[in-house]
Formats: sequence, structure tokens, C-alpha cells
Amino acid sequence: MEKQTLLYEGKAKQVYSTNEPNILWVHFMDQVTALNGKRKTQIAQKGQLASAISDYLFNYLTDKGIANHYLKKVGPVDQLVKKVEILPLEVVVRNLAAGHFVTKYGVPMHQKLTATIHEFYLKNDELDDPFMNDEQIMALNLATKAEIATLKAQADLVNQYLTTLFKEINIELVDFKLEFGYDETQTLILADELSPDNMRLLDMTTHASLDKDVFRQQSGDMTSGYQIVLDRLINRK
Amino acid sequence: MEKQTLLYEGKAKQVYSTNEPNILWVHFMDQVTALNGKRKTQIAQKGQLASAISDYLFNYLTDKGIANHYLKKVGPVDQLVKKVEILPLEVVVRNLAAGHFVTKYGVPMHQKLTATIHEFYLKNDELDDPFMNDEQIMALNLATKAEIATLKAQADLVNQYLTTLFKEINIELVDFKLEFGYDETQTLILADELSPDNMRLLDMTTHASLDKDVFRQQSGDMTSGYQIVLDRLINRK
Repeated sequence: MEKQTLLYEGKAKQVYSTNEPNILWVHFMDQVTALNGKRKTQIAQKGQLASAISDYLFNYLTDKGIANHYLKKVGPVDQLVKKVEILPLEVVVRNLAAGHFVTKYGVPMHQKLTATIHEFYLKNDELDDPFMNDEQIMALNLATKAEIATLKAQADLVNQYLTTLFKEINIELVDFKLEFGYDETQTLILADELSPDNMRLLDMTTHASLDKDVFRQQSGDMTSGYQIVLDRLINRK
Repeated sequence: MEKQTLLYEGKAKQVYSTNEPNILWVHFMDQVTALNGKRKTQIAQKGQLASAISDYLFNYLTDKGIANHYLKKVGPVDQLVKKVEILPLEVVVRNLAAGHFVTKYGVPMHQKLTATIHEFYLKNDELDDPFMNDEQIMALNLATKAEIATLKAQADLVNQYLTTLFKEINIELVDFKLEFGYDETQTLILADELSPDNMRLLDMTTHASLDKDVFRQQSGDMTSGYQIVLDRLINRK
């Protein structure tokens, strides 16, 4: 497989075309951003750790039957994925209150939510990824009722599988962000990456953050948390 | 009926107890605010116009069978209403894109929405009335699924009746905000006020704003729009 033209550079990844029209080459950078890109820095090993965790989690979900874009690793910070037409919506799933949910709604940090919450955000950097409800999404023709139902059902399955997996290694899955896209067969499948860049993870014993919150809050060495997550994943029986 | 203690002063109204425990006295002020109270001014006649329009619209909806808190006028700027336990949620209904919906989602002003949108906002000045989706409302125990369904259904009825009424007088109902509360029989009924303070109204011929947007945008004499709305309402056959 040959890496060809840079198609897109995001906050943490570069995406290239390959000699296969339906396959993309994803390169994980060491770049970390917060505040929707307003704060930006380089952290050594971060790309490698995020890539390795994402590789593990996508393979895990593939084994569980979750349709997704992931194909395989082709280097420490390089992966191949199926080309999909990304839906312009981020899907956030919350098990515990954290992040801007806490400040926006005045809820205590890590309060258990009586039911899992799904939130949708419009993928639009210029508009700062605004939060949307289901009816707004439908009225602006961003997704149909059936697509919204599929997104929620798929996100619930991912939540069940990942919550169980992380519990096994003494980690609580607080919340996470997913993206979905249509593959060449017009199936809506899970895409993007699955790493502590996009999810909040707490050590169940120490309650330490093992995710990007360490960078957001400038509270320590972010990659040591990522390394703990990766080590526990690859050493689980 | 006797006006007694001031219970609450909002942005545009004062609410007093009366000698009847289940009846409140609402006094409409000439105060107008924007930006959630950050900009504030006095506009002569505004209280009287808002009160008269609200009186007309509540009586109209009562005739249509919409359960609500309104009792009667007791003066040009004074009304009696049933005491209700207000739900901490504002219900916004949108027929056309306007206001912060336009800027937040990058939609053209007055774009027709392919379906009516309901939005819920937490009534909390300190948190700046944050927008919430249905699942957040349920997870934080602010309303049940059944209550949310009732709010939407009642809002839809209000929308149908008011849209039809305003069309008769050559006015387009762009969007509006409602509040609901439980009366002493534990019935969820429409409350608050119904005036151009809480709804966007466009003259269907000139497309002029006949509502508080004139104040928000400092684009002219706000009360002349309110006067037009009131005159057309009381002169309809």
C-alpha cells in the first residue's frame, strides 16, 4: 500500500490517499489541542500511544461485530482505514458528568447520570461545533430520524463493549466522542479514532484521569495516562 | 382581589401574592432587557402593550381549549393568574430560522425549516439558560419522558392556533418561547406571558419585525410594532 496525497490535516491526524481508491492512510501526529484548536502543543509519543490504543479498541470492536472503518496498522503512527463519507455530526455518549457538561449545567463532577446521554454536535470548526438536538438535525437535513436512531444504537453498543472492556482493567469510561460515515456499500459505520483523545477514562481505584483532560487542565504528564491505558489493554488476559 | 407581597421580580414582570392562595397578581413593567438582562432600559407603554397582547392571546387559547394559568386583567398593566409550580424549562418552538439559531448554526435568516423545531432551555440565569436535549433533561431529572412529550404536544397546539390567528392578520409567527407549570390539580398547564417579548412576528407584506428584535437590534421604535400587533388583533373580525 502506497501513501499518496495529503487530503486533510486535522487537529491530531493527517489523512492521505493511497493507491487503492477506497482506502485511506491515517498518520497520527504528536500534536495535542484544546479549546477547539486554540491551544496547541507537541507531546512526544502521543501519536504512537493514541494510534496503538485506537488499533486495540477498533480490533476489539471488530471482534464484537461493530462495523467500522479500521483496517490495520502499517507503522507505529500509521494506519489504513476504509474511505467513508463522514456524517457532519459528532456523537457524544456520557455515563458520568464531566467536562463542559459539568460547567454548562451546574452538575457535580463525575455525578452518575440516571440514564446514558447522547449528544450531537455539528462538525463545523468555524461555528465552534455547536450542540444540536434531534429535531434541529432533521430540520436542517443533516441526518434523518432513521440515521439518528442508528447512530444512537451503534453508540450504545460501543458504550456497552468499551465500558465492559475498561472495567476489566480497572478503568471507568466516563464519556466519549464518536464519528460515523458511509462506506462504499452505503452502510453507516464507525470511523475516526478511539483513544484517550476522544474519551474520558478514570482509574477506578485512584480516580486519576488517564486521558486528554490532563492536557486540558494542564495537571500533569498526559502521556503517562495513555501509557497506563495501553499497558493495561495489552496485558489483559 | 388584593395585591399583597412581592414574590418575585423578573426581567419584565413583578409577581405578587394575593388574598387567594392559588391566585397571583402579575404586574407588567415598562422594562425591556436583552442579552439575558445585560442590557436593560425603560420603554413607555411597553408594559401596557405586552399585557394587552398577552391578555388577548391567552383568552384566544382558552377559547380553543388550551389549559393555561391566565385568569383576567385587573388594570392596564395588571393581571391575575393561577399559581403554578413552574417547570425549570423554557420551551422554544421555531417555524423559521431567526435569532441565535441563525448565528449558531450558520443558517440563512428566516429560512423555512423543513419541520417545526422544539428546543428546551434550563431556566437558570446564573448558567445563562443553557440549551438541553431530551436525554439530558431526563438524566438530570428535570422532566420525565411523558412530561417532555406533553410539553411538545401542548407547544404544537399553541403553534397551530397562534400561527393561524396571526396569518389572519397578515403576521408570520417565526418562533416563540413558552413556560409551563403544574396547577393545584397537578395538571401541566401553559403559564408565563404571550407577547412580542417572547415571540418573533413578521409583517407578511413588509417583512418588518413587530417584536422585541427591534430592541435587541436597536433598529427602531419597538412599541410601534407591539401597537400594530395589538391593533390588528383587536380589529380582526
